[in-house]
Amino acid sequence: MSTLLLDINAVNNLMNMPDVINVVEEAFRMWGEGKANMPAKAYLLVEHGDFRAMPAALPGCAGMKWVNTHPQNPSRNLPTVMAIMIYNDPETGYPRAIIDGTRITAYRTGAAAAIASKYLARRDSHTIGIVGAGCQAYTQILAHAELFALSSINAFDISKAAVDRLISSLPEFSIRNCSVQEAVASDIVCTLTPSRNPIIKKEWVIAGTHINAVGADAAGKEELDPSILKEAIVVVDDLRQASTGGEINVPIKEGIYTIDEVYGTLSELVVGKKKGRTDNKAISVFDSTGIAIEDIAVAKLLFEKAQQMGGYPSIDLIGT
Amino acid sequence: MSTLLLDINAVNNLMNMPDVINVVEEAFRMWGEGKANMPAKAYLLVEHGDFRAMPAALPGCAGMKWVNTHPQNPSRNLPTVMAIMIYNDPETGYPRAIIDGTRITAYRTGAAAAIASKYLARRDSHTIGIVGAGCQAYTQILAHAELFALSSINAFDISKAAVDRLISSLPEFSIRNCSVQEAVASDIVCTLTPSRNPIIKKEWVIAGTHINAVGADAAGKEELDPSILKEAIVVVDDLRQASTGGEINVPIKEGIYTIDEVYGTLSELVVGKKKGRTDNKAISVFDSTGIAIEDIAVAKLLFEKAQQMGGYPSIDLIGT
Repeated sequence: MSTLLLDINAVNNLMNMPDVINVVEEAFRMWGEGKANMPAKAYLLVEHGDFRAMPAALPGCAGMKWVNTHPQNPSRNLPTVMAIMIYNDPETGYPRAIIDGTRITAYRTGAAAAIASKYLARRDSHTIGIVGAGCQAYTQILAHAELFALSSINAFDISKAAVDRLISSLPEFSIRNCSVQEAVASDIVCTLTPSRNPIIKKEWVIAGTHINAVGADAAGKEELDPSILKEAIVVVDDLRQASTGGEINVPIKEGIYTIDEVYGTLSELVVGKKKGRTDNKAISVFDSTGIAIEDIAVAKLLFEKAQQMGGYPSIDLIGT
Repeated sequence: MSTLLLDINAVNNLMNMPDVINVVEEAFRMWGEGKANMPAKAYLLVEHGDFRAMPAALPGCAGMKWVNTHPQNPSRNLPTVMAIMIYNDPETGYPRAIIDGTRITAYRTGAAAAIASKYLARRDSHTIGIVGAGCQAYTQILAHAELFALSSINAFDISKAAVDRLISSLPEFSIRNCSVQEAVASDIVCTLTPSRNPIIKKEWVIAGTHINAVGADAAGKEELDPSILKEAIVVVDDLRQASTGGEINVPIKEGIYTIDEVYGTLSELVVGKKKGRTDNKAISVFDSTGIAIEDIAVAKLLFEKAQQMGGYPSIDLIGT
């Protein structure tokens, strides 16, 4: 027995957005059908950052992502967030692969938002607004391009250089540098910032818009004026995580918004327990916090592809 | 940057019981001084077993053990328990090593029990009783031999072959095959079974005995007649874990024993907040459940030794 080692290059070779979208949607479906198991994340705080253990099991796979957030890392030329996944055989517990999880996180987050857009955005959506042109912007665009006929992408960042990098990295897309208000005037808006104050004003949001609120992933973070949530159809990935660290966490804490106002979960949309968009004039919001079943579904995809293709290094770590 | 890969052979080469005892005692000391961070384990249940994420941080190190328990594994020629540790730089979160954790678990558990014996057993203890001659028996003997002048080891197992293997694997020790009652009539007794019913009777335990109750590590498990606990000085590694899954968990659930009856924690003994044995006639029990700071302390030891010695393989998993 041995454990495959899939580093970032291997992950880049094996990763493919259409497949990621399929397995992530399937993960939400299985979760909605009661076939997934996902305990609460375990948080470990250290002086300059934190770590999270994100375990999950789906039929045929189990494992865990171990991911850090160290905000001072860029000054040391290291990424703020780094992740490693351990992918196990659920039948025996044997660790079948150790996988760089950084790229998995980016792809599955883009895929989950695009899946939410599939159910919540207008079918004829063809413009995307990007607020925050960091690494999440790339996978949001790639994922939405699989499900929508995108004509143009309106991108804003406080750093114009970030938008320029996005434009030159994705020459196949029509991306333009614009103001935050112009970005918000798109059919689908993806907010991807670490903001701790609302940056999207209610009056900028046009009737019929769908917003993927991806940035807020910890207590105290928020990107949208809470009055947007009050009027919108709000769907979350995980109610527990969203209410403590997602877009709705600050409005809930401040008593402006209640959990009861949440329309439903992405799983409920995927299994058909709740309807997606029915009104072309409604505003919808997907509150994405990122959940472990998304990661494990992508780890399974990569592991199975790597096994099929062969040639990746492995180690007999356990000595069985 | 790269991540060291320490497989079971590397771990065997680097591991050394005296060092393990030192770093594990130091971990308990730092924890007792409020310098450790150890969130609750995250449990993931699957059909044929479970997984646990055990994160911890000590000054200068952070990381996580991911460990499974699959009771049906022996029929597939796989160990029931397999573990992988991810060892991180706490300053940046960078994963500095991925380490086979199976041997770490065995060594740190032996070390913790021997440290407990140092504070709780009679100084002149020279016989050890082993109840359950599985893989834990080896490290219990190795660890106690560092701290006590052992003259003889009385070993019992329901499988005589297991005791025979123990005897032939440790020729430097005087080990004899005996009944469970004879094993219990030793100065220090280590109970190392997966029992779910008390197997150690009160009347067998001689005044002045110290018992390391190591086997119980999940709800429903117990090895000692609860009346032993009622009269003994009971010390735990972690009160929360012990009361839900350690030796005291069943008596607490049945209302026979209460948390208030616990004398203290191993950390309190190590930092001197509570006294160890003061009465040569007392019976003492260390309820060991196994905690994440023990693992991370040993991971740090192995990582630093491997770095010093050089020559171990590494991988640039993250692509920094």
